[in-house]
Amino acid sequence: MALESPSPHAAPESLDPGIDALFNARRIAIVGASGREGNPFARPLQYLTEFGFDGDVYPVNPGYETLRGLPCFPDLASLPAPVDLALLMVPGRAAVELMPQVAAAGARAAVVFASGFSETGDEGVRLQAELTAAAREHGVRVIGPNCQGVLSTTHRLYGTFTAALELGPVRTGGLAYVGQSGAVGGSILSMAREQGIGISSWVSTGNQADLTTVEVARHLVELPETEVLALYLESAVGESEFRDLAARAQELDTSLIVLRSATSAAGAKAAASHTGAIVGDDGAYRVAAREHGVVEASDIDDLVRLAHAHLALPRSAGPSTVIVTTSGGAGSLAADKAHELGLTIEDLRPETQERLATLVPDFGAIDNPVDVTAQIFRSSEIDDFVEVCRIGCAAQEVDAIVIALTLVTGELAASMATALAELIPQVSKPVALVWAAAREQTVKGREILREAGVPVFDSSEQAMRAIASLRRVPAPVRPGGRPSGFDETVVRRLLDDLTGTVTESQAQEILAAAGIATPDARLVTDVAMAESLSLGTDRAYVVKIQAAGIAHKTERGGVRLGLDATEVAGVARTMLEDFAADDPQGVLVQEMVPAGVELIVGVTRTDGGLPLVTVGLGGTATELYADTATTFAPVDATRARALLLDLKAAPLLTGFRGSPALDVDAVADLVARVSHVADIAGPALRELEVNPVRVLDRAERPVLALDFLMTLERETA
Amino acid sequence: MALESPSPHAAPESLDPGIDALFNARRIAIVGASGREGNPFARPLQYLTEFGFDGDVYPVNPGYETLRGLPCFPDLASLPAPVDLALLMVPGRAAVELMPQVAAAGARAAVVFASGFSETGDEGVRLQAELTAAAREHGVRVIGPNCQGVLSTTHRLYGTFTAALELGPVRTGGLAYVGQSGAVGGSILSMAREQGIGISSWVSTGNQADLTTVEVARHLVELPETEVLALYLESAVGESEFRDLAARAQELDTSLIVLRSATSAAGAKAAASHTGAIVGDDGAYRVAAREHGVVEASDIDDLVRLAHAHLALPRSAGPSTVIVTTSGGAGSLAADKAHELGLTIEDLRPETQERLATLVPDFGAIDNPVDVTAQIFRSSEIDDFVEVCRIGCAAQEVDAIVIALTLVTGELAASMATALAELIPQVSKPVALVWAAAREQTVKGREILREAGVPVFDSSEQAMRAIASLRRVPAPVRPGGRPSGFDETVVRRLLDDLTGTVTESQAQEILAAAGIATPDARLVTDVAMAESLSLGTDRAYVVKIQAAGIAHKTERGGVRLGLDATEVAGVARTMLEDFAADDPQGVLVQEMVPAGVELIVGVTRTDGGLPLVTVGLGGTATELYADTATTFAPVDATRARALLLDLKAAPLLTGFRGSPALDVDAVADLVARVSHVADIAGPALRELEVNPVRVLDRAERPVLALDFLMTLERETA
Repeated sequence: MALESPSPHAAPESLDPGIDALFNARRIAIVGASGREGNPFARPLQYLTEFGFDGDVYPVNPGYETLRGLPCFPDLASLPAPVDLALLMVPGRAAVELMPQVAAAGARAAVVFASGFSETGDEGVRLQAELTAAAREHGVRVIGPNCQGVLSTTHRLYGTFTAALELGPVRTGGLAYVGQSGAVGGSILSMAREQGIGISSWVSTGNQADLTTVEVARHLVELPETEVLALYLESAVGESEFRDLAARAQELDTSLIVLRSATSAAGAKAAASHTGAIVGDDGAYRVAAREHGVVEASDIDDLVRLAHAHLALPRSAGPSTVIVTTSGGAGSLAADKAHELGLTIEDLRPETQERLATLVPDFGAIDNPVDVTAQIFRSSEIDDFVEVCRIGCAAQEVDAIVIALTLVTGELAASMATALAELIPQVSKPVALVWAAAREQTVKGREILREAGVPVFDSSEQAMRAIASLRRVPAPVRPGGRPSGFDETVVRRLLDDLTGTVTESQAQEILAAAGIATPDARLVTDVAMAESLSLGTDRAYVVKIQAAGIAHKTERGGVRLGLDATEVAGVARTMLEDFAADDPQGVLVQEMVPAGVELIVGVTRTDGGLPLVTVGLGGTATELYADTATTFAPVDATRARALLLDLKAAPLLTGFRGSPALDVDAVADLVARVSHVADIAGPALRELEVNPVRVLDRAERPVLALDFLMTLERETA
Repeated sequence: MALESPSPHAAPESLDPGIDALFNARRIAIVGASGREGNPFARPLQYLTEFGFDGDVYPVNPGYETLRGLPCFPDLASLPAPVDLALLMVPGRAAVELMPQVAAAGARAAVVFASGFSETGDEGVRLQAELTAAAREHGVRVIGPNCQGVLSTTHRLYGTFTAALELGPVRTGGLAYVGQSGAVGGSILSMAREQGIGISSWVSTGNQADLTTVEVARHLVELPETEVLALYLESAVGESEFRDLAARAQELDTSLIVLRSATSAAGAKAAASHTGAIVGDDGAYRVAAREHGVVEASDIDDLVRLAHAHLALPRSAGPSTVIVTTSGGAGSLAADKAHELGLTIEDLRPETQERLATLVPDFGAIDNPVDVTAQIFRSSEIDDFVEVCRIGCAAQEVDAIVIALTLVTGELAASMATALAELIPQVSKPVALVWAAAREQTVKGREILREAGVPVFDSSEQAMRAIASLRRVPAPVRPGGRPSGFDETVVRRLLDDLTGTVTESQAQEILAAAGIATPDARLVTDVAMAESLSLGTDRAYVVKIQAAGIAHKTERGGVRLGLDATEVAGVARTMLEDFAADDPQGVLVQEMVPAGVELIVGVTRTDGGLPLVTVGLGGTATELYADTATTFAPVDATRARALLLDLKAAPLLTGFRGSPALDVDAVADLVARVSHVADIAGPALRELEVNPVRVLDRAERPVLALDFLMTLERETA
């Protein structure tokens, strides 16, 4: 172990010094370090010494005088200097009881490796609560228990017993990884190491008695060495915390790649029995992930591949992808995958095709996919092929490049790898290389690309997934203020007075103040008022008697449908006269709303407290086809419009099979207003639903809220 | 080259002797064999001699006296004995011109490797047509042109220049592969070789001037050595031929795995520019694939993995899958994937859990996923772990097993691999092994499993895909006869008289003969008849005047809606009187059909001539949500019922949110009858659509055909 003089690794002021100690500790105590070769508890000391930690390590174990040539101390109290970090390789109960000594030894952070906590039942849950309490009481930030620890390559700080490092340390680089499961983390580290992926830090948070995966990630995203942040999440995450993390990563242009498990009931059961965690509703998670450009990995190997792509390749500006291939068949497969993933394979411009035509054999193809055929390698070594790739990369109409190789093998393969290892890192667009050939036939070429940090994909599906994930997602724009004509003062006053479920008349007032149109309806209390009504001549009306205690209104002539504007006053007069004995409040003159497209607009507040606005087609379609779109409330009309256009049913609004195009902007305006009502309701909101929203093919008031339901739940003080 | 005495490899009588010669040739001529090391045209002779072909090889090239120690002949006419197969490594034009000599030399088959045919434009298309004509004229079956040839391991017959064999021959085994693209085929062969997958035969069919991929596959499926048949299809396939192949594979219980490209417009363009083929509508393909249990691969590597799984593992009897894992996280991920793919992860029976409890540590899990934890390896080597796997495999409640390993490495890994290599081939259920660890840490273990032929998957997604694909699909049952009350004689007579588009009165007759209910409608020609009508008292009726040349029927009082049974005769009388001057045919008394669920039932005949029956929800839903289900016509009611229940909209029929359960059997009966009408129409059918079919919540005549459209197109003799 090269013991350099520890340099001062101060955390930026905004960062938690406890978490910082996990990655930047200058002195580390290893309590329970083992001297037995092959024992996992021997590994942290082995890794720290063999891989060259640039601080001091103090093994603590009364059973040894020295370990790996270092003096071994009987307990934490005997250490020669304060430490920053304690690795506790002792049974669970002992770890809890050591907390005062850990704090006394100066450590701001500890890693508790032992299992036997919340994953084992009630007694374990209690022990874990004690650990949390002890850590908080003594001001020690804890990773674990039931974890495999931390590593940071910056200072070659290997506070972990993962078997992934058996063959040596990992390459230093830009990937920071955090996840609960030590085993899954170990697999990821093992595969990343093999592929030559550079790691900055790696954490297994285990049962998360104190620090959670998201909290650690929130720290790591701020570090300059973190270029790509990858998470494995297997239980409910704090929705607001995750959203904040995702937004921050997006702001910093740091790729955030997430692998989630326990998304199915079966998976959740497996996770619950494993960590004692409960998996919650994930609506808010999904919205946060989509809006902030989180890259979702589908499995362990997929996470490693995507992380590699995001480390090695730049972002792309658009979907236009060119495929350069040695095989028409491989090109065709790649084009199919591109299409599935929302990428486009467009004809190259004539200028580009002309340049390619001088290099590509006649029986190849120069439009896109560009099929250079195996022939290109026969006459001219690899120069023509590399030049084709270069032209594809340089073409202005191209946002990304996929090079799909089949059996390019032997010496040719090595020269090609050398050329591509030079070309790909220079291109300002992502270039994904697929090599559909056995490793045993392409050993040298793959080694050259690995050394250059260029990812090689086994299939065009993998490559296109990577390319699609590299498109930058613009940060969502939050509304700058309330919509025009939205009377916030009135809405707020109305909502302040509310608790429980809104009544019809309260709903009317709220909708009016929010600027949301409802069917025209006026209470007419006498004949003179009826005669002075100004009614639209193009509509039909309903007149209904309004009086407490009239049964069988319709049978008694108290409801008249389908009246035109000229008939209303006469009908109202007759009705007021006929029902005079019932002491009526008046008659309600209501617009009859024509048939139209029906939507649902709803806002719910998730368990984690985030308000989500959802739009969907009305009727049974929403449920049968799960055709809804959701985002965080509030939204402005622009965002609401995009949400509506996300529906599979959007053609019903924009014009479909000869039906008219409806006023999508007006619908979007209503969605925005509804979302602002929910926003003002704040944490008390349980549910808000406008159902149906009727969309009509007319210029005036084309969107009407026909029913409004809202439930508020006040905190009992 | 060990020249054994050629044994007589006679084809079964039913097989095409020309195709048979490709795999069983005793004597092979290689026209244009090259002596230049590294030249692709040197490879077939190299492979045949080095890998031990058990027949005779005659190189033909006027430029050499001998090649690889064999006498080389100046032309085909000079060969010392008749050959079975000719490999033509000459330019395209020369290959065409050689056909008479090929036939004269005795060859029943030839491989044309040259490019420059239909993939290069009009001239190439013409040259290819000449090749086809020449082959047919001389009775030679041709593979190619623009292909990489054939191999059969049975006789070590390597008639290919694929670079996939650079490192040596492939293992002999049960995988037969056919596909157009030589490059894609080469990639598959290269990867299969590396994974130790045993191959029986391999074919690149190129431009398919004579033999198509499907035709070759139809031959290979009959061979006893073919255990798994894998295809790469990149253009339109003969629908009937593919269906026949898929049905035959299903009948023989031979797994048929298909990778298709050119399924998107972009992919199709790539394929078209590459092979000159046009990709047709693939409805019939998709139905044939689903009904006959074709396994659809998503990419080259996926095809290789699935082929390996189907070679090495038995079929499963059901979806119930047990996961045995070293990590709760990995188990949770695997459970999610199982769920996505329609597999089930159910709690193990108490008896099974009890047996596991003695082996699995307390902080593990014994329900499912079974989490043995990494701890299980510490105390007892691998015995306990293997015993857990054995118990999982033996449990009667389990149909399939996935073993999900994380970082099991080093010596332990090798012992574990040895034990699993022994266990897995013995189990009568499929066992898929996932090993999420770097290859460099598990070299020995992987080598042991490879030698034993046990596939190792990189991710639980791959493993679950394999397991899901191993479920046997029962062969579809075709209807035994016409539905009861279906008057085939009458339907046939009515259809024989038809051409073009059916009229309303013809439609009525056809539906009646087919036993399909339509709304009651009777033409009443005089008052007496109107009075004698026997009408249902629970229905509403419409009465319409029927006379040529009455405009504005409704305005003139010629249509009366919503009549009850007692009113019909009076209205009919008045109407007949009022319109007497118009010389009416009579009045139409029609049942008013209540609102209900609306469906579409249609039958189309594809370009390939296969009739497909499709059901869907009526209205806009079918198009917006692509919610349709399709199968081959005709169907019986059982199959039709299953088709209806495949719709996402099925809850509308079976009962949804308080709406009543409708008579699905009656709907299925209608679908079956419609499909039989189409069946009788035969090849003349262009289109048949019943739209809408109205489904009512009533016991009597719950399903009515409201409109019927049919178009027949007779061949002009």
